[in-house]
Amino acid sequence: MSGFPFTIAATDGAARTGAIKTPRGEIRTPAFMPVGTQATVKTMYPEQVRALGADIVLANTYHLMLRPGAERVARLGGLHEFMRWPHPILTDSGGFQVMSLASLRKVDADGVSFRSHIDGSEHRLTPERSIEIQRLLDSDIVMQFDECLALPAPRPDVERAMRLSLAWGERSKAAFDNAPDKALFGIVQGGDIAELRLISAEGLVEIGFDGYAVGGLAVGEPQATMLQILDETAPALPADRPRYLMGVGTPDDILESVARGVDMFDCVLPTRAGRHGLAYTRFGKLNMKNARHADESAPIDAESACPAARDYSRGYIHHLVKAGETLGAMLLTWNNLAYYQTLMADIRAAIASGRYADHILAMKAEWARSEEGRAALQPPA
Amino acid sequence: MSGFPFTIAATDGAARTGAIKTPRGEIRTPAFMPVGTQATVKTMYPEQVRALGADIVLANTYHLMLRPGAERVARLGGLHEFMRWPHPILTDSGGFQVMSLASLRKVDADGVSFRSHIDGSEHRLTPERSIEIQRLLDSDIVMQFDECLALPAPRPDVERAMRLSLAWGERSKAAFDNAPDKALFGIVQGGDIAELRLISAEGLVEIGFDGYAVGGLAVGEPQATMLQILDETAPALPADRPRYLMGVGTPDDILESVARGVDMFDCVLPTRAGRHGLAYTRFGKLNMKNARHADESAPIDAESACPAARDYSRGYIHHLVKAGETLGAMLLTWNNLAYYQTLMADIRAAIASGRYADHILAMKAEWARSEEGRAALQPPA
Repeated sequence: MSGFPFTIAATDGAARTGAIKTPRGEIRTPAFMPVGTQATVKTMYPEQVRALGADIVLANTYHLMLRPGAERVARLGGLHEFMRWPHPILTDSGGFQVMSLASLRKVDADGVSFRSHIDGSEHRLTPERSIEIQRLLDSDIVMQFDECLALPAPRPDVERAMRLSLAWGERSKAAFDNAPDKALFGIVQGGDIAELRLISAEGLVEIGFDGYAVGGLAVGEPQATMLQILDETAPALPADRPRYLMGVGTPDDILESVARGVDMFDCVLPTRAGRHGLAYTRFGKLNMKNARHADESAPIDAESACPAARDYSRGYIHHLVKAGETLGAMLLTWNNLAYYQTLMADIRAAIASGRYADHILAMKAEWARSEEGRAALQPPA
Repeated sequence: MSGFPFTIAATDGAARTGAIKTPRGEIRTPAFMPVGTQATVKTMYPEQVRALGADIVLANTYHLMLRPGAERVARLGGLHEFMRWPHPILTDSGGFQVMSLASLRKVDADGVSFRSHIDGSEHRLTPERSIEIQRLLDSDIVMQFDECLALPAPRPDVERAMRLSLAWGERSKAAFDNAPDKALFGIVQGGDIAELRLISAEGLVEIGFDGYAVGGLAVGEPQATMLQILDETAPALPADRPRYLMGVGTPDDILESVARGVDMFDCVLPTRAGRHGLAYTRFGKLNMKNARHADESAPIDAESACPAARDYSRGYIHHLVKAGETLGAMLLTWNNLAYYQTLMADIRAAIASGRYADHILAMKAEWARSEEGRAALQPPA
């Protein structure tokens, strides 16, 4: 029997908090999944990721099938053993990365042929092969294979891709074959067209999945568009199953999406921003490359529990970033992932105590104490 | 009163083991100093460096004067506070890096004018300014300013640079002015000419320093040349003061140099090799880029106390290195610095128990179980 128990401990409006219970551990929801594209959350030791409170990480089927290869990961004991992360792992199906990274893509009704962005070698993904790869990786939460379109796209194209994804969802489910101690999630597609999103959601529910993702969002559209689609789509998804908004997002995106009933998120923002000199803080984002930080002896956030935020001066981190030193990216990624996990813990607590609407307002007020606002509050160095 | 107590607990031939006692902590000798060029030991958190057993790290005057600037480091509380390393720090004088990195160098009797390799800006170093910078950094062990020549060079050039370095040594000492709780080391120059090395050593001893470095070696000459110069030079340096062989070296270089009475070493090898996919092990060096490691589930060294060596499979590290993931460099640097600190601890123990000659033989025999030899011993994956 596949799928995991999902218990909702509290709701507040459409927002809910609870836990997904897996044999590899509990996933507290709403959950943020750090992205470990190539079987590593960039610049982080796995123990650090865990210590920040992450219950689950995401890894990418597309990258891992190309290098080191799914069969090799299986021979080395599976992805948990390979990357030293004994806790739950979600893998995407490869569909999104094939669209965004591979060259010479050719989609047919059966699957996608493409060339590797690494060495140009030819590969093919079908729903069956995607599920097989995710099984070789020993993923806990397996995603159906889908076709992602770049938006905007003409309605006939959006509809065709959505219906193809539905068909591939059905084949993914057959290939998954109710794998014990695993879960399979379907993916709602349909671009920014509410009618197509609803057809997709209803079709997926009819097939029946252990959880439901909303895909094809946060690909450049305005936040309002994304939230409207969530408003229209989330109610069509079963209330007793986890909802996962793929590739989202900024702290503000997450706050707003949780208010619309989303339980799970993943995003490269905190890790990527960390490699580009940006620090997420309670008071907004700091650009550590800015010369204004050069003489600051204060840390990023003296009240943080994360050593990267609490123990190193901004002046030092500014120096590391300017000098291109790896430790700069290590510290900022650490800080940013800590920020995101604290964001989620605070969201869960606010929902549990029935003050989520107030929490959203309070968070936005804190962020309004932006980089410039905060600078004005600080004594000159 | 400047300088630190140096106690020699045991000798074995010319090799000796003991400790330099500084207000910031004891430096067990023979000591290996990890290199923290830009105020960071690349890819390592400072706590990790300490936990491996490093008592002291080295930082570079040339790099830090250019970025972030010595006065800025002083404003931020000094180098220990800046880089979160509360233990002893040795800074070089800038002479070597001016020679190897700066452009448009112009040496005169008073000092060196040069342009920054970062932005082309003009700078000048003199013995007085070098000592001032090292004081601003709050270095514990300060190096005299010297002129380093690229070898081979004609004897008149070698002699001129050696005599200039002697004169700069005298000016460095005057500028240092017996700073309390600090030490000033002189630097023996003279290329590969024994007679000039002896003149340099005797001149330095006459000036009187808290310790004596041998500079201008390990710049491409054969190991035999370096060891011969040590054979000729070390006896001319006071037995009761620490001897420091700058920029050395391989594990074998260190073993052989300790046998000739050297107490301190620094080298970028373990950190640089870590960023280039190389792992130092008890059985020689492993090139983790080699495809042979792709399917290895064994770690680098299951008996190591270092998590990087003990807990991650070679197959995973191979993957990280091939994929250009930062964690690969982080793990290999960690492994390599652990190897070097264990090397030094074993050297100290062997001298203390009077079996240093045997220890050298045993170490070399282990290394002879080279990458290929070890591969042959392993069961196929």
